[in-house]
Amino acid sequence: MIDRTFDEYKALFDEHQLDFIPDIDQKSITLYDSMKYSLSAGGKRLRPVLLMAACEFCGGKAEEALPYAGAMEYLHTYSLIHDDMPCMDDDDLRRGMPTNHIIYGEAVATLAGDGLQSAAYEAMQRDMLLYFDNFEALKSRIRAAYEIVKGAGVTGMVAGQIADVEAENKKCSKELLNYIHITKTASMIKAAVRAGARLGGCTDKELEDLTLYAENLGLAFQVCDDILDVEGDQALLGKEVGHDEANSKATYPALYGLEESKKKFRELTDAAKDALADYYDNAELFVDLAEMLYARVY
Amino acid sequence: MIDRTFDEYKALFDEHQLDFIPDIDQKSITLYDSMKYSLSAGGKRLRPVLLMAACEFCGGKAEEALPYAGAMEYLHTYSLIHDDMPCMDDDDLRRGMPTNHIIYGEAVATLAGDGLQSAAYEAMQRDMLLYFDNFEALKSRIRAAYEIVKGAGVTGMVAGQIADVEAENKKCSKELLNYIHITKTASMIKAAVRAGARLGGCTDKELEDLTLYAENLGLAFQVCDDILDVEGDQALLGKEVGHDEANSKATYPALYGLEESKKKFRELTDAAKDALADYYDNAELFVDLAEMLYARVY
Repeated sequence: MIDRTFDEYKALFDEHQLDFIPDIDQKSITLYDSMKYSLSAGGKRLRPVLLMAACEFCGGKAEEALPYAGAMEYLHTYSLIHDDMPCMDDDDLRRGMPTNHIIYGEAVATLAGDGLQSAAYEAMQRDMLLYFDNFEALKSRIRAAYEIVKGAGVTGMVAGQIADVEAENKKCSKELLNYIHITKTASMIKAAVRAGARLGGCTDKELEDLTLYAENLGLAFQVCDDILDVEGDQALLGKEVGHDEANSKATYPALYGLEESKKKFRELTDAAKDALADYYDNAELFVDLAEMLYARVY
Repeated sequence: MIDRTFDEYKALFDEHQLDFIPDIDQKSITLYDSMKYSLSAGGKRLRPVLLMAACEFCGGKAEEALPYAGAMEYLHTYSLIHDDMPCMDDDDLRRGMPTNHIIYGEAVATLAGDGLQSAAYEAMQRDMLLYFDNFEALKSRIRAAYEIVKGAGVTGMVAGQIADVEAENKKCSKELLNYIHITKTASMIKAAVRAGARLGGCTDKELEDLTLYAENLGLAFQVCDDILDVEGDQALLGKEVGHDEANSKATYPALYGLEESKKKFRELTDAAKDALADYYDNAELFVDLAEMLYARVY
């Protein structure tokens, strides 16, 4: 049962966000510092909150889902660090702060990303060792970890990143744009929700409904990102706007126009909310979150 | 019981090396191509062979260890791709072939490395789903995966990489050099052997002895790499020599001199062999492998 607000879940996560990084030797402390720098740079914590909320929605405890919430945020953060590098999007600013490679250089930033990815899997793998006396809980954890690795992997986020890189400066079809958005962004949102549901011991119906919610929310989130890159406020966003157009990126506004994109954004938000219409009393956080993201200006 | 040769294990691995990469959509096929390019570039397969041999040494079946052997090689390959990038070691040649970023560009090479790391964990996580009817086998797999993620992670390989990067162009102590070699190289050799042992259902003594073997072999392997970079044959090595000195890398020859390094190399090789002295009839592959690596010229 969900009885916390988004901010309460976020506060819980923020308190524990570094707990799942193993103790790194002083001789490699730059690795820890650089990972911590990007982790602590004030993200929205959308993925870990979704994971913990989905866990409680299905009857589990948020505290027990923390290693997996950590894994989600570590994976998201690694992807941002690598995505910001000069050979990728070449961004100097992220959440109002200099990007990782600007502070630490490209070699360290590459390794900070690599380290965060491995720390994500290590967090989950270590957690599983604690459930050798509980076969059912162990199976839920394995299923959850599989959702996460799939979402972040070569048929999920990384697939989206490469299609995105390759679509630059080329004519991009609507089908390809949809594929990029689903893999690059929605797959991680979906993974967070499904992993949380698995950890909470979901029913088949809960998993199905939450998946539909997450797919629509994830796509809405990326359409919103595209829109904000056109008409967002750089000071609020904490990053440069107009970057997509300058890089000839495949975006909704570029392919559908701004008005049509906003219409699509509204439809996706409604579809996300509708997916959880059967759970009026328990789904408030998810429904409110969809509207909160709809209203977001950064 | 080990009843195959190194080459037979290698052939088994090579046949299945791509089996554990999920089916990647045609829209992201460059990701698959670039991952496959580096995976298929003719590595020695030291880590997967060690893993499979350790599994059989302890009573398991090599075929059942293949997803974990794949994970080891995927992780090793991702580290090479990132290590070769211009912001790291800036190598154009690897195993006699152009490095990944020379063929595919830096953005794709970054993602090929990221994708291989995630594919490694996905291979193991997917394998675990197949053992939900066998709690003991499942536990061995979780332990094996944990060995691998630790070996490749922020207290293992990635820690070594960052210390290596930071030691460039600086005075490096013998203690730091040892730390770098243990974390950067030996930790993955150790992870391969220990993961295989876990999968094979090792006794405590087997795990302990194999660990000592792997620690010495792993360090010997890196000392050998350092020596070959000084006096190896570029044509045989398939990569440029003199690279460490040009990059002011921390190496054994730089700190101990060439003759002392060779003596150390011999001692480590003997220590590796001695660690398995109690298993005369079953440890031949491991003992021969140590001598084979001692004699290697590439």
